[in-house]
Amino acid sequence: MRAIMYNPISVEPELREVNVPSIGEHEVLIKVRAAALNHRDLHITNPNNKKEFIYGSDGAGEIIEVGKSVKNWTKGDQVIINSQISCMECEYCLRGEHSLCDAGSVLGGVKWPGTFADYVKVPSVNAAPKPIHLSYAEAAALPLALGTAWRALITKAKLKPGESMLIQGIGGGVALYCLQIASAIGAKVFVSSGSDDKIRRAVILGALDGFNYKSAAQDPMSLSEKGYDVIVSSSAASIESSIRYAKKGGRIVQFSYLGNAIPQFDIDAVMGKQLQIIGSAMHTYSEFIEMLRYVEQSKLVPIISRRLPLDHFHEGFKEMENGNQFGKIVFEM
Amino acid sequence: MRAIMYNPISVEPELREVNVPSIGEHEVLIKVRAAALNHRDLHITNPNNKKEFIYGSDGAGEIIEVGKSVKNWTKGDQVIINSQISCMECEYCLRGEHSLCDAGSVLGGVKWPGTFADYVKVPSVNAAPKPIHLSYAEAAALPLALGTAWRALITKAKLKPGESMLIQGIGGGVALYCLQIASAIGAKVFVSSGSDDKIRRAVILGALDGFNYKSAAQDPMSLSEKGYDVIVSSSAASIESSIRYAKKGGRIVQFSYLGNAIPQFDIDAVMGKQLQIIGSAMHTYSEFIEMLRYVEQSKLVPIISRRLPLDHFHEGFKEMENGNQFGKIVFEM
Amino acid sequence: MRAIMYNPISVEPELREVNVPSIGEHEVLIKVRAAALNHRDLHITNPNNKKEFIYGSDGAGEIIEVGKSVKNWTKGDQVIINSQISCMECEYCLRGEHSLCDAGSVLGGVKWPGTFADYVKVPSVNAAPKPIHLSYAEAAALPLALGTAWRALITKAKLKPGESMLIQGIGGGVALYCLQIASAIGAKVFVSSGSDDKIRRAVILGALDGFNYKSAAQDPMSLSEKGYDVIVSSSAASIESSIRYAKKGGRIVQFSYLGNAIPQFDIDAVMGKQLQIIGSAMHTYSEFIEMLRYVEQSKLVPIISRRLPLDHFHEGFKEMENGNQFGKIVFEM
Amino acid sequence: MRAIMYNPISVEPELREVNVPSIGEHEVLIKVRAAALNHRDLHITNPNNKKEFIYGSDGAGEIIEVGKSVKNWTKGDQVIINSQISCMECEYCLRGEHSLCDAGSVLGGVKWPGTFADYVKVPSVNAAPKPIHLSYAEAAALPLALGTAWRALITKAKLKPGESMLIQGIGGGVALYCLQIASAIGAKVFVSSGSDDKIRRAVILGALDGFNYKSAAQDPMSLSEKGYDVIVSSSAASIESSIRYAKKGGRIVQFSYLGNAIPQFDIDAVMGKQLQIIGSAMHTYSEFIEMLRYVEQSKLVPIISRRLPLDHFHEGFKEMENGNQFGKIVFEM
Ligand SMILES: [Zn+2]
Ligand SMILES: [Zn+2]
Ligand SMILES: [Zn+2]
Ligand SMILES: [Zn+2]
Repeated sequence: MRAIMYNPISVEPELREVNVPSIGEHEVLIKVRAAALNHRDLHITNPNNKKEFIYGSDGAGEIIEVGKSVKNWTKGDQVIINSQISCMECEYCLRGEHSLCDAGSVLGGVKWPGTFADYVKVPSVNAAPKPIHLSYAEAAALPLALGTAWRALITKAKLKPGESMLIQGIGGGVALYCLQIASAIGAKVFVSSGSDDKIRRAVILGALDGFNYKSAAQDPMSLSEKGYDVIVSSSAASIESSIRYAKKGGRIVQFSYLGNAIPQFDIDAVMGKQLQIIGSAMHTYSEFIEMLRYVEQSKLVPIISRRLPLDHFHEGFKEMENGNQFGKIVFEM
Repeated sequence: MRAIMYNPISVEPELREVNVPSIGEHEVLIKVRAAALNHRDLHITNPNNKKEFIYGSDGAGEIIEVGKSVKNWTKGDQVIINSQISCMECEYCLRGEHSLCDAGSVLGGVKWPGTFADYVKVPSVNAAPKPIHLSYAEAAALPLALGTAWRALITKAKLKPGESMLIQGIGGGVALYCLQIASAIGAKVFVSSGSDDKIRRAVILGALDGFNYKSAAQDPMSLSEKGYDVIVSSSAASIESSIRYAKKGGRIVQFSYLGNAIPQFDIDAVMGKQLQIIGSAMHTYSEFIEMLRYVEQSKLVPIISRRLPLDHFHEGFKEMENGNQFGKIVFEM
Repeated sequence: MRAIMYNPISVEPELREVNVPSIGEHEVLIKVRAAALNHRDLHITNPNNKKEFIYGSDGAGEIIEVGKSVKNWTKGDQVIINSQISCMECEYCLRGEHSLCDAGSVLGGVKWPGTFADYVKVPSVNAAPKPIHLSYAEAAALPLALGTAWRALITKAKLKPGESMLIQGIGGGVALYCLQIASAIGAKVFVSSGSDDKIRRAVILGALDGFNYKSAAQDPMSLSEKGYDVIVSSSAASIESSIRYAKKGGRIVQFSYLGNAIPQFDIDAVMGKQLQIIGSAMHTYSEFIEMLRYVEQSKLVPIISRRLPLDHFHEGFKEMENGNQFGKIVFEM
Repeated sequence: MRAIMYNPISVEPELREVNVPSIGEHEVLIKVRAAALNHRDLHITNPNNKKEFIYGSDGAGEIIEVGKSVKNWTKGDQVIINSQISCMECEYCLRGEHSLCDAGSVLGGVKWPGTFADYVKVPSVNAAPKPIHLSYAEAAALPLALGTAWRALITKAKLKPGESMLIQGIGGGVALYCLQIASAIGAKVFVSSGSDDKIRRAVILGALDGFNYKSAAQDPMSLSEKGYDVIVSSSAASIESSIRYAKKGGRIVQFSYLGNAIPQFDIDAVMGKQLQIIGSAMHTYSEFIEMLRYVEQSKLVPIISRRLPLDHFHEGFKEMENGNQFGKIVFEM
């Protein structure tokens, strides 16, 4: 089968021909129909990684083989893939906190082959029915990004209807899902971005307003009288400004890695305004179920920036590197 | 001024001419433009009440006089009235749990004259800006019923997007606000009613389906596979069936009095399914602020069953007694 | 090996000689050193049960064999047994709510042979290190009863230091653990019982006072000015009085089955006082870990009513039936 | 009367003779019997403060006069003073979050004269009965420090029995109350300090162990296998190490100002370990009630470092400046 693999020598992704994986008794084999790109795929393309692997955390497709102990799936079922595989035995898994698992892995890495391939295997508990109103490409755009947004907004920030919210850095997959969900439930959503065009598109999707942190034409505090109840924050710059923009008693959720940046920040403001800074990563199995129920009920449709055939993967990686995307980049097989 | 008063001899409401109230230093006087009827107005029309009072908990109007210590209001401000007046000193008020106040009162009773009058006085903290997109009649339909729905759904049930929910007995003000909010935030909402017509109208407003507990043509459990995550329940009959219809781990919120009915109920099911039965009454000052923020952002418009001039109050009381209303009954002055 | 088995013909427990169980790859075999009796053992001794089984949910002992995939245990390890076996795949298990498992079982029943035997097998995840400061008999007294108390008090009631609390019906295992934990964390604990002697012993263990619901010499409301913040309730009679004794905003946790009793109760009081009635059953894997950490830190020692050799099991069953015990009844092998 | 006042010219406290305050209708006048020193008293002794004021947030004494609307107090009542005065009208007060009040003040500052005087006036709601088992000096040691500890541990960190906890910097009032409460409820408490002597004394009070961050003889991570569930943190240095020492899913509560220090910190670790950094300040009226109930039930006795007559105030300020105290410094009148 075809697979996009990491080459530790060139430190580049490349298309290769490899064997179709064979499955264990609790696993299923999926014919991948679509797979989405994540920042994670870029992060793991770095010289510290010395071993090859198949890329891709997100995907949707058709079950073509089931392990002998698998009861809930049959050949032909259309599924979406939960990208996170947990041990189910460590204290975090037993607490239902799978994204803290002591021995977990994510599809698309040395521990578990990913979805940028014609076939992928996963534990049967990691497959869920594809939402009927979505195409494979749309479904593939959900797992990692929507899971991250769901945990950040619903579980961690506990965003309530009517609250004011700032999304720092609009345009990526997680940020856009935050925008879609928060608008739908009646929060007052504002965005920040370095691009006027992205702000304009966010407003079309439900944001009340936005400010461009490059031009700084607008004072973000002017958007919301007393600051924001909830801020979701995804960059090194934004943690510092988030503390400034947060309302007293506000919650700031950080859902992505900053890389090597080590920001300074005003701990006195955290204490004086009694803020909460909350780290949130990925999602749990239970959150995956919850978010799919919501997608089904709300008929949410992901924003897709670009669809590409799998062998044009270079264009996809390039676009994400440039930060030009607005929505998910999806490969179709 | 005109006022609808309770006559303890006839045990009936009647229109009377009374003095305009004079205000204290922390109070404001409001020219009432519209006032809404609540079940509470019917409940307090009973022979146990030996003293006369002015009816009416809900209202909206214009500030025409402010007490000398009042700083945040000026003559002409258009306001909506928070029906619940709390002592701000008891342990419950200090906890922010104003609807448990040891010394509180509700507008429209012996302790505090109500809104079914040309003028009403309230503490300045009990007035809030009228939402701009609503008429006085629509604004008057909000306080008690939306406050009760908000506390029940958001604070108590902590309803999450995507959860399944059953509203037992659709048609009243609180139940309809529950329907509007729950649908908006992406819950899967079902209703029960004794009237097919009310079910039909609920479906138009966003309910997925409903069942008629009189005809029993449909098994309510067929609507939602494993039962409901959240049930809001308002009648003697419904607490018993709610326990049956609740999903394992579900929450049942009881937001109204049943009167003299003392239901039997299956405590073994409460324990076995690990349910929560939660009593919820009225709302707090903070919830009043929250819900108005949501109304403003979501542009929620109340369902009004009927508008009547104040002196036609008898028709309004009659309609509510018959249980025919679908939405709020509002008097206009 | 010896085993106490249910005889569906006599509807009685009896001592039998059976084969030592053989273990699966994820299981361990335990030489049982002590096992404790629970109300559950009495409840399942009824004519509706048509199949034989080995009794016993609670136990402690020594690992004597480990399945081939088991890594965390070795022969000779001293362990305590988590009585509840969950599927780890249903939506409840994925949420960490194992005691709601769609396909779970409890040691000591048709689905899984129990601990009233010389040997018992369990999944490796169901064994935990025996607290060092406890004997086997003491350790065997912990799992089901302490797990139930922990979930009821800590997870469900969220009891806080300084709160007032009433334990309805002192003397059983769960109630006594509630008393020990609640006193230790600084709650004001009161008890009810039909026996003055049990009340006296509860006071020695830390209760502030108690009332005898048979003699009714004392008004329970006189014990705590405004009612109780938290009530744990275990009998048909007590749910009704618990609603009366609860303080406004209070929480009532029901942790055991009442059998066929279907109590009437005052739903208007539930709503007016804004109470929560919370069903709580058994415990989760995570709560099992938490409670053992607490036992280790607090050096909690269970109250044991009586120790008996296994073949005197009839005396143990009899004592529990009569309701005379104060603490756990433990069999030693 | 005598009063310790801030002199804006010398930037020093000094003893002066001033008028006894006169009270408003909702206020009470208290003969101060003891008053405790806080870090706050040092912080506000700085050249930025241009106006004089009477020092002192904490105190206990006897009511000698009550305002005409005050009903719950009479002359002679022995009381403890809640140091924080809130507006009861802003959105935070209405939420019960008084320490975020938009218009609040703390006793001992320009807005409200403090307790380092023979008499002090406070709103009647700011007095509470002195715990019977405590002397005036002990009672005076409670309010600000215990309130801060209570909010940090119980409300914010939601510390549970059995959890592991690290107190960064033992010796001050808040830290010692954290130690006393956390030990009592069965947490595994560790401390850090720059003084071996303070560690030794903390261990006597219930800490399991401690490490000296100056000598660094011991690796703090060796004390608790996988890090700490809860860390309370009070210095610039400690926020950085707290992030390192926290267990996955852990909570770090920052309860004091660092002054001008702006620490760098590893936001990637916050995200990767999914930590919560929680700012906590002072306490609410409700927490004040809660903590006094706990004090009464647990018979908690504050650790007092030193008692001094009021006119020896210079010695007290000096001792706190040097950081040598272990417990509260109390002035007696
Ligand atoms: Zn795990
Ligand atoms: Zn009150
Ligand atoms: Zn399960
Ligand atoms: Zn305030």
